[in-house]
Amino acid sequence: MKLLKTLAPAAALIALPSLGLAQDDGPVPGTNASTDTVFIFNSLLFLIGGFLVMWMAAGFAMLEAGLVRGKNVAMQCMKNIALFSLAAIFYYLIGYNLMYPLGTWMNEGIISGVWGPAVLEPVGVTADAADDYGYASTGSDFFFQLMFCATTASIVSGTLAERIKLWPFLIFVIVLTAIIYPLQASWKWGGGFLDAAGFQDFAGSTVVHSVGGWAALTGAIILGPRIGKFRDGKVNPIPGSNLTLATLGTFILWLGWFGFNGGSQLAMGTVGDVADVSRIFANTNTAAAGGAIAALIMTQIMYKKPDLTMVLNGALAGLVSITAEPLTPTLGAATIIGAIGGIIVVFTVPMLDKMKIDDVVGAIPVHLICGVWGTIAVAFTNDAATFATQLYGIVVVGIFTIIASAVVWFILKLVMGIRVSEEEEVAGLDMGELGMEAYPEFSKS
Amino acid sequence: MKLLKTLAPAAALIALPSLGLAQDDGPVPGTNASTDTVFIFNSLLFLIGGFLVMWMAAGFAMLEAGLVRGKNVAMQCMKNIALFSLAAIFYYLIGYNLMYPLGTWMNEGIISGVWGPAVLEPVGVTADAADDYGYASTGSDFFFQLMFCATTASIVSGTLAERIKLWPFLIFVIVLTAIIYPLQASWKWGGGFLDAAGFQDFAGSTVVHSVGGWAALTGAIILGPRIGKFRDGKVNPIPGSNLTLATLGTFILWLGWFGFNGGSQLAMGTVGDVADVSRIFANTNTAAAGGAIAALIMTQIMYKKPDLTMVLNGALAGLVSITAEPLTPTLGAATIIGAIGGIIVVFTVPMLDKMKIDDVVGAIPVHLICGVWGTIAVAFTNDAATFATQLYGIVVVGIFTIIASAVVWFILKLVMGIRVSEEEEVAGLDMGELGMEAYPEFSKS
Amino acid sequence: MKLLKTLAPAAALIALPSLGLAQDDGPVPGTNASTDTVFIFNSLLFLIGGFLVMWMAAGFAMLEAGLVRGKNVAMQCMKNIALFSLAAIFYYLIGYNLMYPLGTWMNEGIISGVWGPAVLEPVGVTADAADDYGYASTGSDFFFQLMFCATTASIVSGTLAERIKLWPFLIFVIVLTAIIYPLQASWKWGGGFLDAAGFQDFAGSTVVHSVGGWAALTGAIILGPRIGKFRDGKVNPIPGSNLTLATLGTFILWLGWFGFNGGSQLAMGTVGDVADVSRIFANTNTAAAGGAIAALIMTQIMYKKPDLTMVLNGALAGLVSITAEPLTPTLGAATIIGAIGGIIVVFTVPMLDKMKIDDVVGAIPVHLICGVWGTIAVAFTNDAATFATQLYGIVVVGIFTIIASAVVWFILKLVMGIRVSEEEEVAGLDMGELGMEAYPEFSKS
Repeated sequence: MKLLKTLAPAAALIALPSLGLAQDDGPVPGTNASTDTVFIFNSLLFLIGGFLVMWMAAGFAMLEAGLVRGKNVAMQCMKNIALFSLAAIFYYLIGYNLMYPLGTWMNEGIISGVWGPAVLEPVGVTADAADDYGYASTGSDFFFQLMFCATTASIVSGTLAERIKLWPFLIFVIVLTAIIYPLQASWKWGGGFLDAAGFQDFAGSTVVHSVGGWAALTGAIILGPRIGKFRDGKVNPIPGSNLTLATLGTFILWLGWFGFNGGSQLAMGTVGDVADVSRIFANTNTAAAGGAIAALIMTQIMYKKPDLTMVLNGALAGLVSITAEPLTPTLGAATIIGAIGGIIVVFTVPMLDKMKIDDVVGAIPVHLICGVWGTIAVAFTNDAATFATQLYGIVVVGIFTIIASAVVWFILKLVMGIRVSEEEEVAGLDMGELGMEAYPEFSKS
Repeated sequence: MKLLKTLAPAAALIALPSLGLAQDDGPVPGTNASTDTVFIFNSLLFLIGGFLVMWMAAGFAMLEAGLVRGKNVAMQCMKNIALFSLAAIFYYLIGYNLMYPLGTWMNEGIISGVWGPAVLEPVGVTADAADDYGYASTGSDFFFQLMFCATTASIVSGTLAERIKLWPFLIFVIVLTAIIYPLQASWKWGGGFLDAAGFQDFAGSTVVHSVGGWAALTGAIILGPRIGKFRDGKVNPIPGSNLTLATLGTFILWLGWFGFNGGSQLAMGTVGDVADVSRIFANTNTAAAGGAIAALIMTQIMYKKPDLTMVLNGALAGLVSITAEPLTPTLGAATIIGAIGGIIVVFTVPMLDKMKIDDVVGAIPVHLICGVWGTIAVAFTNDAATFATQLYGIVVVGIFTIIASAVVWFILKLVMGIRVSEEEEVAGLDMGELGMEAYPEFSKS
Repeated sequence: MKLLKTLAPAAALIALPSLGLAQDDGPVPGTNASTDTVFIFNSLLFLIGGFLVMWMAAGFAMLEAGLVRGKNVAMQCMKNIALFSLAAIFYYLIGYNLMYPLGTWMNEGIISGVWGPAVLEPVGVTADAADDYGYASTGSDFFFQLMFCATTASIVSGTLAERIKLWPFLIFVIVLTAIIYPLQASWKWGGGFLDAAGFQDFAGSTVVHSVGGWAALTGAIILGPRIGKFRDGKVNPIPGSNLTLATLGTFILWLGWFGFNGGSQLAMGTVGDVADVSRIFANTNTAAAGGAIAALIMTQIMYKKPDLTMVLNGALAGLVSITAEPLTPTLGAATIIGAIGGIIVVFTVPMLDKMKIDDVVGAIPVHLICGVWGTIAVAFTNDAATFATQLYGIVVVGIFTIIASAVVWFILKLVMGIRVSEEEEVAGLDMGELGMEAYPEFSKS
């Protein structure tokens, strides 16, 4: 996200004195809009961006429900609605304040301190009081930031589908959304050392997508592949049960991504900011298109038959790839960055298979590998970024997430086991763990 | 909704004189935004809120299509698109003016009187003319209010699924949306006696959800249970045909609810209003999360297996529970209010079964019982509410809706019959009433 | 769309001089909002409208995936995501500048000329610089306009489903979105001769929907009907595989249409503009409702059984019908215009069958015939339109699109063939062209 929250106090030396004087009817410097109007526009951006990113939770649910086998569909729906709910609760209880620990404008004076639950501004604040909460309402910021945290957890559920137990997975989600995600996010977006080092990650190719990807990768290795995926040295494709759902999920994610990237401009109250948000919308869309078409062409060339699942993942790959810097590229550069993401997915999905890492929905290629690619690509389009600092950020976040995730996964494995029994896996998690079926009337092959 | 429309004229004594002077460039009192900007923000809130609530119609359609058996799915889709369309037409023809009968700012001077169809402001009004229409455009208000009316009808269709005839159901929808809903809504939101008595219902736990719930309950009793639901003193669970659709429907409703509750702030043009809308978004989300997790934990404890349908209904229960007061609670209180809603659903679904009331999708526990709970809960978080006035409102609205619904259902039963024939019910309404199937290619069990 | 972009320079003589002086804190003439605020509101309208119309791409995908047989579903998903992606890329590369060729405010000074790719304003423009880009950001306008172009292509894919080859279809999409659509759109919305002649088409009943419809009709005739559709002089109905998806798609399109029509007001920064956008939302909704209910009643009367597919298409017909003029009609007139659209669909679907034109999803009745009806209907509600000029526009656009499309289809037929082999068609395009199935676990009839 563009405006670092910890930089805001510094910026305040210039901007806030006049912003603060809400009783002063003069326009905000650099604009002829009133201070209140700017505050409202910024908050509105968070609200619109937030509900669009919330909608991505439905997108992940549909994508994953479509890409697992019929016998595991109800469980995949359950995991998705439960992980989103847990993220909401634990980001509120712990994560939000952990992510912005430095007494920045966002929580100054209204929050008791790190590790306390998030506290919103009181009901019916006056225009003057708004000065205490910075350039947008705390409620809108909390709502928006929460959705990013939940996205990280959504990424993990797809990779580990069809074999992980429900409760250990949910406990991992709690740790991820309460601590792992917020802590590393604070290093960049909370104004920590990665931010100080000049690391650039506009909307979270690294902070959100690679973190979900690393956590998923670590889990996939510790959990092992599904029964029958790798047999006698061969890779057995296990087709998803419902490709219309997977398509719907992809479209939902594509739509939600306008909020993800556009909202990360963090401001819409000036001509420059709204023009930037517009650029971001256009770039985000064209990167997705580039990723989809690249995957379409690549699968046509390589396999002679275009692969719908790859095209869907190609679009998502394009979206992840542009997320680290959706503002500075031209439309052409954004299309190419997305297209490279689409190509990466086509090549890395079989690569993971060769390494016998079983990623049910392709989340690791999409979110982790393209997250890394997108973060590196910033150095091509944004002068503020260098390859060295981008790599530094990727590596630091990666090592931390791998270690933290591995510790949690191993503890869960030791204490309660993370994998369902062989019979349950063969019979399907829906009957085994939930005692219900997603499509009870339709015969299974 | 926060601002009572009939209170607006009173408030106008303070606020409108200056609001009215659009040619006066001075800011609105209490804000440094211009009067026109406030008008635009308020209208925009209604438009965004309205399209989000419209989307809830799709959510109900998917939820219900997923929870009925395959042989009744096309009919459930038909009922949902038809009821939304009829609500749009009859709320326009009759309901809107019936709901705001007192010549308030909203229709003053532009509408011929009660019982006439809604009339919007003319095309291309000037800034001055806006004074005639209050603090937001009539078109945006009509659009927003209409969606609430339609929601009430959506609630009924789920409970009565799989056995009610199409046309009697649609005639009931017409009476509900033209008269029953608007009349009782006028008692609170039209500034009637419930409002005067101090009854609090911010976004409609009672006015919308319990009314849909009472109408559904009355219908369910008069209509009787589905064949085979209660046999030999036992309750036979009848699983829904498509739980991914039910999950999708729940996510859609969750998303739409931000418009439902957030839009009910009725204003976004000041710092205080946008901060309140933000609080509402955050509280609405956390209440849904609380409801889902509570239902997850309860079903795990009670049945040893978590129940996806209960978790989905738990999320919806959380949403209904916070709807009567989404603004004043803290995030923590909102989570608990929602969680209690989730627990209520887990206990009341089997209770209804014991009473041999057949509610196909669980709409009565979710919308009626949690609607009542949410309305009572206001007394805990909003000083303006007392238990006595809250109960008074619940009971008055309940008695009226039960009597009015029962009269309509009995007349329909007498005149044309409300239930399909036994053969049709067994064969499914899709072939019987529509002559088509939702999934013609997939074999049924 | 209301404001012609080529008229803007003329309007600028009056409005822009003061709009231009962003450093001048005075309000915009005719409003007391500041110039920057108006710019932000207008851009925001494009962004919200744009993401809603983008969502329509998912609506078309679901509608079409639901109305084809199971064996062609994955291919229909593929075509929809690929066509949207190609539209994004080729409208960027060629279409956008072709559509606004006259050096209007939108591209003046920043684009190298017609046939060049679209170029957005630089990052972080100042308030002053905004004057160069007119009343809204170029990025937001590009994003919004692109979605209209993509819609045109979405219309074609439904009609030609279940028998057209993937790649020739996609090449047609490229020509349609790069050249055919933008060229004819420039005649009206780019300020060309149709606009000069007084032709009225607010949001594109002719410019978007009829163009998609003509291209689909031409393709359907050249491609021929599906095997088995017309046999021994009889019409064999081929039911869709998934009516819940078709219902979902219809709801998505309904929702997206608020952006389609509302965004076409092109401005939201004054009281008059936001009130007009509100009228458009309300009228769009009621026209859809009118179309659905009319189709419901007509099929009940004509066939004794209401037809869900017809009701869904009736709602879409209502939406297309109101698109040429969603602003000027009263709510009552809008309902009737939509209802006539719904009736048209019920009568023209069997008419096409009699002509042995095989339109899989009913896109020609909905988008072409109701597009024509909607364009003619403008003459009833908008004094600026005459029957003669409306017919003139319809005919000119129709002849051009038929000829241009036919040329492309014939070349494609000659060069690479446009139809899959008979075996492939019988086996289904999913296995034949993609080597995968949408629902691999569910047995087919």
